[in-house]
Amino acid sequence: MEKKDLLYEGKAKKVYRTDDPEVLYIAYKDDATAFNGLKKGTISGKGIINNQMSNRLMQYLESKGIPTHLIEECNERDTLVKRVDIVPLEVIIRNIAAGSFSKRYGVEEGTVFAEPTIEISYKNDALGDPLLNAYHAVAMGLATWDEIETIKSYAFAVNKHLSAFWKTCGVTLVDFKLEFGKLSDGSIVLADEISPDTCRLWDTETKEKLDKDRFRRDLGGVEDAYAEVMKRLEEHLQQ
Amino acid sequence: MEKKDLLYEGKAKKVYRTDDPEVLYIAYKDDATAFNGLKKGTISGKGIINNQMSNRLMQYLESKGIPTHLIEECNERDTLVKRVDIVPLEVIIRNIAAGSFSKRYGVEEGTVFAEPTIEISYKNDALGDPLLNAYHAVAMGLATWDEIETIKSYAFAVNKHLSAFWKTCGVTLVDFKLEFGKLSDGSIVLADEISPDTCRLWDTETKEKLDKDRFRRDLGGVEDAYAEVMKRLEEHLQQ
Ligand SMILES: Nc1ncnc2c1ncn2[C@@H]1O[C@H](COP(=O)(O)OP(=O)(O)O)[C@@H](O)[C@H]1O
Ligand SMILES: Nc1ncnc2c1ncn2[C@@H]1O[C@H](COP(=O)(O)OP(=O)(O)O)[C@@H](O)[C@H]1O
Ligand SMILES: [Mg+2]
Ligand SMILES: [Mg+2]
Repeated sequence: MEKKDLLYEGKAKKVYRTDDPEVLYIAYKDDATAFNGLKKGTISGKGIINNQMSNRLMQYLESKGIPTHLIEECNERDTLVKRVDIVPLEVIIRNIAAGSFSKRYGVEEGTVFAEPTIEISYKNDALGDPLLNAYHAVAMGLATWDEIETIKSYAFAVNKHLSAFWKTCGVTLVDFKLEFGKLSDGSIVLADEISPDTCRLWDTETKEKLDKDRFRRDLGGVEDAYAEVMKRLEEHLQQ
Repeated sequence: MEKKDLLYEGKAKKVYRTDDPEVLYIAYKDDATAFNGLKKGTISGKGIINNQMSNRLMQYLESKGIPTHLIEECNERDTLVKRVDIVPLEVIIRNIAAGSFSKRYGVEEGTVFAEPTIEISYKNDALGDPLLNAYHAVAMGLATWDEIETIKSYAFAVNKHLSAFWKTCGVTLVDFKLEFGKLSDGSIVLADEISPDTCRLWDTETKEKLDKDRFRRDLGGVEDAYAEVMKRLEEHLQQ
């Protein structure tokens, strides 16, 4: 299937129409942004890694019974996905305190939670993606209670499977952001991407950061970190 | 019972020990603050109104089966309460969008929700009382799941009873903040205060604000607004 006109250019991906109104063509970019777009840069080769990693992980999750938008990879940067209406919620699971959580609540980065936490924020760049809860989301008409329940249970299942998988790679899944969408029949599927842009991944032994925090915090070795987690994924994900 | 040494001076009240370690003596002040203490002022007579209103409303809630910290009013400004360990969560119920909610989510003030919403924030002035959710509160050890369930059900019951009561006064209960605490036996009771400092109260017909927003937003007539809601309460609360 070919890409037609550009529908939307996001911070990390371009989204094109195809001949089929139910199918979109996603092209991953090397552009990197942080702090709600305040910091901008390029991570050379990121688009390739994120495309391939996201697809491999979504395939893996499909094999565990979690529905995703993935149809098929077109080439190293581009993928066909099912068109969804994105539920305007960013769903964040945290196993270990880090980043905005640590800052907001004064909890030291690295503090391991007894149980994973889930939170949702309103996917709205103009408002700075503010944290909200299910009552707010329902009151504002962003999702129904049923949809939120489904999303929560998928998100916890994703965490269970990906934490276990990354563990085999010597990588700790600290936290991650998911987006979900609705197919034309109303069913919920995992959409968007799963990559070092959207996950915190720490080397389990050294605690070295192998994700976008290297870019956010100017730690250097950004490209190497992305390549390292991709290499480990390829070594450990037999399919 | 007499007041002994000052235990804590808050933004709106002074808390004294008494002879009984399970009893505290609360003295309401006329001091007013807003925006996490950035704005400071005085609302003359507020301490008297808040003390009396809070006690009348807590008595009313007790009659509806909601346990509170209230023991007895000592005089127009001072009250004896059961000492609790305050659960460090500010519990906010909203029936209508206003204030920080409207600003944070871009929802016009006055938008009526189909169902009331509840939210909790971390009672921590240094961190600016950040919004959180039950998963965060449990992960940070601020409360247990059971305690949060109890608090939520009490908070919704408070909303039901107070919304109905204020309606008889021609006043709309827009939103309010509650604090809960644990008695020495571990049971949860409603603590702190319920007053125009902690509730948004609008005249149902004119939508005029009869609460601390008159102070926050420099609308004038602050003392008159507090006196007006107290007068309506006294006319309508038969006990
Ligand atoms: N299957 C899909 N159908 C429709 N939109 C999608 C799908 N998957 C992801 N998107 C959306 O594609 C857009 C582009 O992605 P991205 O560049 O990451 O955008 P953003 O700047 O919002 O983070 C996002 O708005 C994302 O929600
Ligand atoms: N029954 C109670 N036992 C112990 N502390 C209480 C009780 N009721 C209220 N408090 C606490 O009394 C303190 C003083 O009240 P206030 O002046 O409103 O303080 P703040 O500046 O924290 O808003 C607050 O920390 C409040 O949580
Ligand atoms: Mg994105
Ligand atoms: Mg207070």
